[in-house]
Amino acid sequence: MNKTAKLLAAGLSFTILAGTASAQVIGKTEDQIRWRQSAYHTMAWSMGRIKANVEGTYNKEQVIEAANLIAAIANSKMGPNLFTAGSDKGKGWKETRVKAELFTDKEGVGKVAGPYVKEANEMAKVAATGDAAAVKAQFGKLGDACKGCHDKFRKDE
Amino acid sequence: MNKTAKLLAAGLSFTILAGTASAQVIGKTEDQIRWRQSAYHTMAWSMGRIKANVEGTYNKEQVIEAANLIAAIANSKMGPNLFTAGSDKGKGWKETRVKAELFTDKEGVGKVAGPYVKEANEMAKVAATGDAAAVKAQFGKLGDACKGCHDKFRKDE
Repeated sequence: MNKTAKLLAAGLSFTILAGTASAQVIGKTEDQIRWRQSAYHTMAWSMGRIKANVEGTYNKEQVIEAANLIAAIANSKMGPNLFTAGSDKGKGWKETRVKAELFTDKEGVGKVAGPYVKEANEMAKVAATGDAAAVKAQFGKLGDACKGCHDKFRKDE
Repeated sequence: MNKTAKLLAAGLSFTILAGTASAQVIGKTEDQIRWRQSAYHTMAWSMGRIKANVEGTYNKEQVIEAANLIAAIANSKMGPNLFTAGSDKGKGWKETRVKAELFTDKEGVGKVAGPYVKEANEMAKVAATGDAAAVKAQFGKLGDACKGCHDKFRKDE
């Protein structure tokens, strides 16, 4: 294949992939905003549970339940599925707090999304060991990863 | 141990277990109601994604993402953690639709909670195979398990 053909093929693959991905995306803007707000609040509950365990009586099973749920949300590809074009404004349970930059600054999004998914999966691994001190340390790293996105792409209330 | 001692020991174990469990439960009533509404809506999103895949173009990874998230929620022990006494009334994102019977009919709750957790975990297993027909069948079973609880313990809107 010459260079032009390769570029065309790459472009076609991208179009097909994009087409396939968009065919699976469900929900109107208000649905997507409500679902993403729901997912973040389910994570907030789970983070709160881990915090209560590392600061109080440690219960291995509870931390595993919470960490697995956080990891499952982190791996659910909320980005392409619940932050589609046009959802920078709108109301789910409440008005979205997302900044418009999330939809334009792809490099910046990648810099915060990657660490978040990585630390969430690591949290699940560490939770499985039942090592309270390691869980406490990983909880801090995960919290920092969450904050990385909040600071950059979420409006203050 | 004589019978009285055994009963006392059993009672003590129960008290300790109950004490430990309650120490890990977090959130005020309105927090718990908001978190459980969030978790159910995160499941609704995930069920919608599986539905879109079995009815449209099947994407194995998307179904796995959604099924794993549903399973993680099902395994998170929402019952004892987000349906504590007094949360039969109250407002999270909106007024709770739970019926008071959920807090009194323990046998009935067990009859619907068990199948829901079982079918959710089975859904994750079937999703991992990528067998679209099997996923479709399991999706039906999981939907029935969800409905079993809605019919019995959720008020109509």
